[in-house]
Amino acid sequence: MPVEWQPVQQSRTHELVLRSIEERVFAGELRAGDRLPPERELAPVLGVSRSALREALRVLETIGVLVAQPGRGPDAGARIVRNPDDALGRLLRLHFALGSYSLHDVLEARVLLERSSFEAAARHAPADDLDAAERLVEGMAEPGIGVSGFNDLDTRFHVLIARSSGNALTSTLTSAVRESVRPLILRALEAADDWSATARALNADHAALLALVREGRAAGAADLAERHIRGLHGTLVEGPAAS
Amino acid sequence: MPVEWQPVQQSRTHELVLRSIEERVFAGELRAGDRLPPERELAPVLGVSRSALREALRVLETIGVLVAQPGRGPDAGARIVRNPDDALGRLLRLHFALGSYSLHDVLEARVLLERSSFEAAARHAPADDLDAAERLVEGMAEPGIGVSGFNDLDTRFHVLIARSSGNALTSTLTSAVRESVRPLILRALEAADDWSATARALNADHAALLALVREGRAAGAADLAERHIRGLHGTLVEGPAAS
Repeated sequence: MPVEWQPVQQSRTHELVLRSIEERVFAGELRAGDRLPPERELAPVLGVSRSALREALRVLETIGVLVAQPGRGPDAGARIVRNPDDALGRLLRLHFALGSYSLHDVLEARVLLERSSFEAAARHAPADDLDAAERLVEGMAEPGIGVSGFNDLDTRFHVLIARSSGNALTSTLTSAVRESVRPLILRALEAADDWSATARALNADHAALLALVREGRAAGAADLAERHIRGLHGTLVEGPAAS
Repeated sequence: MPVEWQPVQQSRTHELVLRSIEERVFAGELRAGDRLPPERELAPVLGVSRSALREALRVLETIGVLVAQPGRGPDAGARIVRNPDDALGRLLRLHFALGSYSLHDVLEARVLLERSSFEAAARHAPADDLDAAERLVEGMAEPGIGVSGFNDLDTRFHVLIARSSGNALTSTLTSAVRESVRPLILRALEAADDWSATARALNADHAALLALVREGRAAGAADLAERHIRGLHGTLVEGPAAS
C-alpha cells in the first residue's frame, strides 16, 4: 500500500496560532485595545507562515475580538476589540439557515430572553435609554415608513431594551437570536396584506411596552413582550429564503 | 504627499468569499452534509487566490458550519456541518476573558437559561435522557473523583438536561454560557478547602434536581437549579486565569 500524504500540518497550524493568541487572552496578557505585532514580525516569532497567521487572524476578526487597521498599512498590526454582537448574530443566522435549530426553538429562546429583558428594563432602565426608545417608536410611527426601515428601528428598539436591562450578555444573546430570524421577519412583513395596518399594530405594542417599562410594571411588560413576539412569529414561515 | 498603498483588496477578499458561501446557505442551495468543491477547483471559479479561499474556509470551520476532510487529501473538499456548540462556546469564552461581559452577567444569563431548561425537562424530558443523567450523577459520586473529571461530568449533566428540554437553541446557549466560565469554575473547585465535601454537596443538588425532574415538578426544579447555580457562582472570583 503506497504511503498516503496528508496535509496534517497545514490544516493545524492556524489552529495552533489561534490557541496561542487565545491563551494570552485567557491569561490577561492581551486585553481590549492592545495591538498585535505586524504580521511580518509575528509570523517568524510564532514560527509559522504568514498565510497560516493570517488565517488565524481572520478567524479572530470574524468572532469579533480583532480588527485589522485599515488605512494604516499592512504593518500596523491588528487591534484587540470586544465586538461580540455581530459575530454571534452571524453564527446563529448561519446555523439557523442550516437547520441546526428550528423556528420554534428561536421563538421560545426569544420569548425567554425578551421577557427577562423587559422585566429587568422595567426595574432599572436608565431614563436616557427610555427616551431613546421613545424616539425609535416615533420613527416607526412615521407615515410611509417602509418595511426595511421599520425593521431596522424595530430591531434597535428590542436591542436597546435588552441593553438597558444592564446585562451585556443577555443583550448580546437577545440581539443575536433576533438577527438569526431577520430574513424571515423581513419576508413576513413584506408579505403583509396591509403593511401600514401591520406597522401600526406592531408599533402600538412597542408604545404600550415602553409605557409599562416606564411605570416599572415588570410582570406586565414581560407578558406583553411575550404576546408581541408570539404574535409576530405566528406569521413567519420556515424555509430557505429562495423558496 | 506620496501615494500610500493599502492592502484593501487583500483584506476584503476572504470576506467576499465568506458572503458568497453564506448566501448559498441562506438560499438553501448548500445544506448540511453537502460538500464544497476542492480548493483548487473552487478558487478559480470564485476568481480568488487559494489563500483567500482558505481564510474564508477557516472562518467557517471555526464557527462550526464546515469541516475539512482529513485523511482524504487536500482535494476532497470540505463538508457542510451543523456544530454550533463548540464555536459558540469558544466565542463567549474569549469575549468573557476580554471583559465584554461580567461574571454577574454570566450568572444571570445562566440562571435564566437553566431555570428554563430544568422547567422544560420536568415537563417533557425523554426517559432515556434522565437515565443518562442518572449515570452522570453516579459518576460524580465515585469516591476519589478529581476536580477535572467531576467538572466534565457536571458540564455534561447540565448540557444533557438542556438538550432534553427539546430546544436545540437554548441548549446551545446554555452550554456556551457554561463554557465561558469553565476556567473560573475549575479554579474555584481546585481552591475548595475540602474537595470531597464540596463534590458531595454539589452532587447532592444534582441528585435532587434529577428527582424533581423525574417527578415532573417543573417549578421546584427551576428554583433548585437557580439556588445551585447561584451557590457555585458565589465562590467564583473574576479576573484573568494567570493571576
